[in-house]
Amino acid sequence: MVTKNEIKFIKSLTSKRVRNKLKLFVVEGEKSINEFLKSDYKVYKIYSINPTTFNIPEKVVEISDKQLSQISSFKSPNKHLAVFKQVEVTLKNKNIYFILDNVNDPGNLGTIIRTIDWFGYNQLICSKNSVDCYNSKVIQSTMGSLARVDVHYTDIIKFLKKSQLPIYGTSSKGTSIYKFSGNKKIGIWIFGSEAHGISNDILKFVNERYTIPKFDTKTMTESLNLSTSFSIVASFLRFY
Amino acid sequence: MVTKNEIKFIKSLTSKRVRNKLKLFVVEGEKSINEFLKSDYKVYKIYSINPTTFNIPEKVVEISDKQLSQISSFKSPNKHLAVFKQVEVTLKNKNIYFILDNVNDPGNLGTIIRTIDWFGYNQLICSKNSVDCYNSKVIQSTMGSLARVDVHYTDIIKFLKKSQLPIYGTSSKGTSIYKFSGNKKIGIWIFGSEAHGISNDILKFVNERYTIPKFDTKTMTESLNLSTSFSIVASFLRFY
Repeated sequence: MVTKNEIKFIKSLTSKRVRNKLKLFVVEGEKSINEFLKSDYKVYKIYSINPTTFNIPEKVVEISDKQLSQISSFKSPNKHLAVFKQVEVTLKNKNIYFILDNVNDPGNLGTIIRTIDWFGYNQLICSKNSVDCYNSKVIQSTMGSLARVDVHYTDIIKFLKKSQLPIYGTSSKGTSIYKFSGNKKIGIWIFGSEAHGISNDILKFVNERYTIPKFDTKTMTESLNLSTSFSIVASFLRFY
Repeated sequence: MVTKNEIKFIKSLTSKRVRNKLKLFVVEGEKSINEFLKSDYKVYKIYSINPTTFNIPEKVVEISDKQLSQISSFKSPNKHLAVFKQVEVTLKNKNIYFILDNVNDPGNLGTIIRTIDWFGYNQLICSKNSVDCYNSKVIQSTMGSLARVDVHYTDIIKFLKKSQLPIYGTSSKGTSIYKFSGNKKIGIWIFGSEAHGISNDILKFVNERYTIPKFDTKTMTESLNLSTSFSIVASFLRFY
């Protein structure tokens, strides 16, 4: 049985401050929970309507529908909710980095993590003011991919100062990405925030700016969605 | 001043049934409203906290903050909300069509419409069971692009039966999209639903199936986000 205090504790994990203090986070849904169970993440506890779903009885607590709806961040709660321990990430690939500067939208971050996973990049760097990857909406839109992608929050300027790699920025103005002739396997690619692009203090470090060209310059639309731009660039670097 | 009945009427437009019966829909935010004002859409009325923002006084009604929050679908309502008349769309480009079969997520549809606009395709076909393009979340994520993209809801099977164009389906199994060697300017490209892909009765009409390859086949992730896949294919067809 789940106590009132435990309900309160799980609900407190919706706060980024509490999550990062306790080094815990919440994953909902059987598929996503299984992806994390198969990964380096350690499970703290699983709260489930059908506890036998998971083959680790010592970690599973039965929960009622009503209690689950109290702790779920979904409108229609799934049958299971798990608390996992956060891990310290290490960036293993030292040749190519994707950096998000001040990404705000959890759906965008989640979709980008899913795309990173698909294209086998396995890692992502975010500025410290970016949305937290353990936010429930981020986790939901990664569809389990966060279990396989190392997301590292750091001071971007310090990181860029230390690096010897070429630094590319994506921007609404720049050379067409399709004309990129550098080494696609080596470099740092920076993407800015949804509303303001790359911030000026980071833009100073950018060696070359690239853009996804509009087909028709008469089109009034000002920008693509951030995760859309990201996926086009990531796909271009992987496959052409 | 805005009457209680008018508030009730605007709120009723959150229902797809009511929107389609009255042939009206709601647009929020100055930027999006201006995009629709510049388009073929005719404005019915604008409700604004600062009525002088818009240069068509006969169409603008002053509204209080409190009233706006009653009718807005945003958590933090913008200063302006407009009601526009729906238009009958005509598909002008007879050579290339993108079809969404049973797309459910309003954010995906909105992002796809924005991408269509960016790449200058100007039109999109959706199956009748797809999410309505006049849904407030769709309009929000198009960022004004719906004003320039004709979204046509139709019976896909009837449409495919009548067409003489090659029919391509995107799927988790198929030839790599990067190996596509057909004419990129002629054809029908079908994308399936987020959860189930292209439905079987439509798949029968598909001549060739294409996929966005995973970089690393060990990766357990099963799929890309629908709008991510769409943008990679649309970008590939436009620029390579």
